[in-house]
Amino acid sequence: MVKPVTLNEKEYLIGVDLGGTNLRVAAISMDGKVLDNIKKSTNLSRGYSDVVDRIRSLINSITRKKSLPPTAVGLAAPGAINTAEMVITSSPNFPEWEKAPLADDVGRGFSFPVYLENDANAAALGESWIGVAKEWNTFAMFTLGTGVGGGIILNGDCWRGPDGMAAEFGHLTIHPNGRLCGCGNSGCLETTASASGVAIRGKELLGKYFLDNQGVAKDEISAELVTNLAKKGNADAKSILDDAGTDLGIAMAHIVLSLGVTKFVIGGGMASAFYLMRSSMRNSALSNSYTLTPKRLKIVEAGLGNEAGVIGAAHTAMIQANKT
Amino acid sequence: MVKPVTLNEKEYLIGVDLGGTNLRVAAISMDGKVLDNIKKSTNLSRGYSDVVDRIRSLINSITRKKSLPPTAVGLAAPGAINTAEMVITSSPNFPEWEKAPLADDVGRGFSFPVYLENDANAAALGESWIGVAKEWNTFAMFTLGTGVGGGIILNGDCWRGPDGMAAEFGHLTIHPNGRLCGCGNSGCLETTASASGVAIRGKELLGKYFLDNQGVAKDEISAELVTNLAKKGNADAKSILDDAGTDLGIAMAHIVLSLGVTKFVIGGGMASAFYLMRSSMRNSALSNSYTLTPKRLKIVEAGLGNEAGVIGAAHTAMIQANKT
Repeated sequence: MVKPVTLNEKEYLIGVDLGGTNLRVAAISMDGKVLDNIKKSTNLSRGYSDVVDRIRSLINSITRKKSLPPTAVGLAAPGAINTAEMVITSSPNFPEWEKAPLADDVGRGFSFPVYLENDANAAALGESWIGVAKEWNTFAMFTLGTGVGGGIILNGDCWRGPDGMAAEFGHLTIHPNGRLCGCGNSGCLETTASASGVAIRGKELLGKYFLDNQGVAKDEISAELVTNLAKKGNADAKSILDDAGTDLGIAMAHIVLSLGVTKFVIGGGMASAFYLMRSSMRNSALSNSYTLTPKRLKIVEAGLGNEAGVIGAAHTAMIQANKT
Repeated sequence: MVKPVTLNEKEYLIGVDLGGTNLRVAAISMDGKVLDNIKKSTNLSRGYSDVVDRIRSLINSITRKKSLPPTAVGLAAPGAINTAEMVITSSPNFPEWEKAPLADDVGRGFSFPVYLENDANAAALGESWIGVAKEWNTFAMFTLGTGVGGGIILNGDCWRGPDGMAAEFGHLTIHPNGRLCGCGNSGCLETTASASGVAIRGKELLGKYFLDNQGVAKDEISAELVTNLAKKGNADAKSILDDAGTDLGIAMAHIVLSLGVTKFVIGGGMASAFYLMRSSMRNSALSNSYTLTPKRLKIVEAGLGNEAGVIGAAHTAMIQANKT
């Protein structure tokens, strides 16, 4: 019997998802399937060079198992990315990484090209490639994690803006006199609709409840705990997620009115609360944008989950490699 | 002596600017010069057919003086325009015009094509053609008139959104619990930064001042009066325009964060207050978008004044005629 050509012997891509907590590296087939997947702790505290070395070593451990080098590697990282120069130009969560030539440093000595992309853009590209948005030509993505990221796909292409700084949805001012945000502004979307924002509000509203009833220390109250409590019907927890949804809806209305985009994908860790936020999101998007109708407004939960980053990074690499 | 070829014998375009108050029709040279210009009252109250007839008759009175028909006619009208079907799909100020095939009705029987464009998009296209934005590839325009309109130019093309509803900046929610807007939402940009919004605030804050000192009835207080008073140093008038600038800056910050666009043109009647709003606009744009730096933020006053509409409409017609 003739041995069939195995996946290892085919062309493939590598996607790297560099998050604040986890570093994921995966081999991805040319049609978007995850072939091999490694997850490690990012350990940002060890510094830039250490993270670069670990990414390179994880890429090596994947390519060693293959008979071919990857067609290209895509790195998804938080912050504003200059895709022409392949550097992170601004990254509130990774300040010491600013201006670092991350793609060059990771790619040094490799025979294959390495491309850099903003993580939320990568997630949007992933969803448009093989996820929930594959039938959509134009949409926006919110990634609800530690912060709130965004990606915009216009006519099938990722719109990054003239300086790679587009789709910073997390810092849209929703409440002009609201809570102080890490960026220095007040009332940014991130203060209420990110996992950190939900956790902070959880500590305020639910701290007593947890201490009294569940033996959970106030400091341990996370967005996940708030979500679980809301699923069980706790009114305070539900109101926190309702408010997050309302603020996401206002941000969507801004995007509807500015860009005319009416289709949205919600991803990131907080997407587990999607169905708890959906109704307030829709209501507030509709009431804050007169051009919008219920029929035109589409809001769906991301389909790629934790793999969105590596798949999107691989897709970015495929697109960039085809351009050059 | 050989008679030189006169402008009348050359190719030209016709631009029509259909405003709530004025109807302007102009012959425009292929390099954007106004050759002939007619201004009439729009008289919307006489109904759709009457306005269509008057536009046709003004086009005729221009073409009669020429030896050639125009290459194309562009109509700039308020509201959301479906540029594929050339109809106004939504127009809060002209509700009875919705779904009317305005370009077809104006063009009936003419030998030249007639195209329809949103008035603020037309103004942005005009500024990018021969105005203050001719060196800019990507920018956004605010037209501050009775309402607040918007236009977005991305990589040299007008971005209209999938349904022609992009750049409705006037209805961005700036104050979630603010004044009721004509669109049904509260706290829209238009409630503070349009000529109507400034006039309403003027009546509230300055009514007594005018009655006491100037013999002006409260009802006659207009944005122009507020602007003139602010120019003379009146603190209340200055605060109204300061607030308008602050809210425009928040809207700019939304556009910076969503689209990555950092260059803005301010046009429309209220642009006469540009230098009174400029400082608060800049400050609030900068403080509401962490990605923005003073160097990257450009805000300029429109260069085409009252001719922006006809010039932009002509430019739209030229672009569309070249596409077909």
